[in-house]
Amino acid sequence: MAAWGEEQEMAVRTGRRPGQQDTRQEILDAARPLFAELGYARTSMRAVAREAGVDPALIHHYFGTKEGLFQATLELPIDPTAVLEGLPDGPVEELPARLLDRFLSVWDNPEVSPAMISVLRRALDDPQKAEPLRRNVVQQFIAEPLRQILHELDPSTADQRISLLVTQLMGVIMSRHLVGLEPVASLTTDQLRELLLPALAHHMFGDLS
Amino acid sequence: MAAWGEEQEMAVRTGRRPGQQDTRQEILDAARPLFAELGYARTSMRAVAREAGVDPALIHHYFGTKEGLFQATLELPIDPTAVLEGLPDGPVEELPARLLDRFLSVWDNPEVSPAMISVLRRALDDPQKAEPLRRNVVQQFIAEPLRQILHELDPSTADQRISLLVTQLMGVIMSRHLVGLEPVASLTTDQLRELLLPALAHHMFGDLS
Repeated sequence: MAAWGEEQEMAVRTGRRPGQQDTRQEILDAARPLFAELGYARTSMRAVAREAGVDPALIHHYFGTKEGLFQATLELPIDPTAVLEGLPDGPVEELPARLLDRFLSVWDNPEVSPAMISVLRRALDDPQKAEPLRRNVVQQFIAEPLRQILHELDPSTADQRISLLVTQLMGVIMSRHLVGLEPVASLTTDQLRELLLPALAHHMFGDLS
Repeated sequence: MAAWGEEQEMAVRTGRRPGQQDTRQEILDAARPLFAELGYARTSMRAVAREAGVDPALIHHYFGTKEGLFQATLELPIDPTAVLEGLPDGPVEELPARLLDRFLSVWDNPEVSPAMISVLRRALDDPQKAEPLRRNVVQQFIAEPLRQILHELDPSTADQRISLLVTQLMGVIMSRHLVGLEPVASLTTDQLRELLLPALAHHMFGDLS
């Protein structure tokens, strides 16, 4: 089994042979609708293996963990959990700055944002792909951490605040990267940060009435 | 000329013959890049006619005014100038409510929003189409009226306020209609209005630092 695994690994590293590429693809094709339908938490590696008609060990081999598999289904160039890790740590009044810096580290980073934009375009093209994107990436990895933090601050307004934060940031992505709307499209990262920080702080802590 | 015009008119009403459909399409194909390159104001009917190789009277016949031609190039189901007409009239403190009501009358109106969403999807698919959409519709018809109003209030912050307003509203369109992000996607129009009104008021009049 170890030798077989090594052989597979080598094949992956040196360019996959068609048959192996197919197996990997079949696992992804089986996993996508399961993640979309059941959500991340209720989708098991075992169920994906059954659906794909492969041994669960093969999924571990190709994708490591369930999170690795999930990210592969989205073809995201980054690990959203790593980006958001530690977001709640530190003074709560600096939470808007921490959130914004992480947002900019993905969407205003020339090494990452083109790939993210391509993921987003594909999601917008194809409602089947939008399903895991919205339910899982944005909901579980972005809205959920915020929800937890904001619920501690004020449970009665947490949903409103998340909606305002998420729409503001989504609109920035769209204006800056998808539609090229001025003046947002031409701001430097620093100018964008300066523009957004007080707005995010208002959405988090300001008067909502 | 009158009789010829009537005949054309009838042909349009009763289903266009291929040749006439082609002429109309050729005018649109000539007009799109001109509007994109020169902007609405600097694009003349005469230049479009020259580019399309047709008599300017034909453009008037098919599209009426320059605005009619421009809207036809975008295939918008609404007239953006009509939606925004009178926006500056009335007490300035009610400007956020007036803006929001007009926004909702387009994007939360089940008779209009599906067609608008389809325009937006096409614009996102095809950068050539995004060009007139962004430069003209959003800039000239939405950002410009706001810019005039906000410049009167405080010229030094007008651009920032417009950027915040436009990104917030773009993000709502995207979350609610393109990606289906909760909880924004499932709010009623009244709930959405209640959520956005204080945020828009803050973007217009609030402290930006």
